[in-house]
Amino acid sequence: MKGASRRALVPMQRDDAITLRPARREDVPAIVALLADDPLGRERETDSDPLPAAYGRAFDDIAAQGGNFLIVAERGGAEIVGCLQLTVIPGLSRHGMRRGLIEAVRVAAACRGLGLGERLVGRAIEIARAEGCGLVQLTSDQSRADAHRFYERLGFVASHLGFKLALD
Amino acid sequence: MKGASRRALVPMQRDDAITLRPARREDVPAIVALLADDPLGRERETDSDPLPAAYGRAFDDIAAQGGNFLIVAERGGAEIVGCLQLTVIPGLSRHGMRRGLIEAVRVAAACRGLGLGERLVGRAIEIARAEGCGLVQLTSDQSRADAHRFYERLGFVASHLGFKLALD
Repeated sequence: MKGASRRALVPMQRDDAITLRPARREDVPAIVALLADDPLGRERETDSDPLPAAYGRAFDDIAAQGGNFLIVAERGGAEIVGCLQLTVIPGLSRHGMRRGLIEAVRVAAACRGLGLGERLVGRAIEIARAEGCGLVQLTSDQSRADAHRFYERLGFVASHLGFKLALD
Repeated sequence: MKGASRRALVPMQRDDAITLRPARREDVPAIVALLADDPLGRERETDSDPLPAAYGRAFDDIAAQGGNFLIVAERGGAEIVGCLQLTVIPGLSRHGMRRGLIEAVRVAAACRGLGLGERLVGRAIEIARAEGCGLVQLTSDQSRADAHRFYERLGFVASHLGFKLALD
């Protein structure tokens, strides 16, 4: 059974009121719906009602570990239409520079093309600066050509290859 | 002035005793020497004696944030000849899967070609599994062709592009 959060959204209008704010636990079903509404996410997520309990546990895990910022874009004070996670990571490299890692950037299909992704990434950059980061980094699947153009437009440089190893 | 830790190392022998262990604060100068002894690191680090205080502060920052594992390879109980940082990151994607991010992998030039890098990455994978991670990921500069072959040999897949944005 699909979650209630999975109902079709009304297309976004340029003057819709959008608030960016920290995610709350009750936002988890709507965030999972966003993660699932994606060519790659469709295979990876289970957007059922009730949700698998692992998602709620992961939310608590994110909240408990220092350095994590889970941000949502809310429309009209009611609907979650975008999300992103920023993790601030201390390290010795580059004179002990902190870096911000961005993961799980999603904008609802009905709400694209109006700058919402740019606002979300902009908020992550603001937080990363405030946390003393010297750079922000992310990886994007090789198949996401639109995403690559988006990040390059925001000034990101595709200087690296991103390697993954699945663990059993 | 170069740090004492920057003295040339004796080339590694196959039967040298190598221990992998968590880094201690007194290892920081030797770790920075490894980071600096690299075509990209040379431009980015300051391996002076005394070291810039920012490195020690970064060590404390790493130790204080949950999820971080800074590992060193020690030869003969005395010399740091390799290092790596693993950060365990909780997230909602993929059924609330944790991921392990590997950064700052270095093996001393005198100690390459004898499997030390593989042992370091293997230890990071062990820790990531024990911490419940479903994947391990890293990025590698596009110019590091040797590193790319190394990670592919270990089973990593170059499925992603890695984007970075420098902050002022």
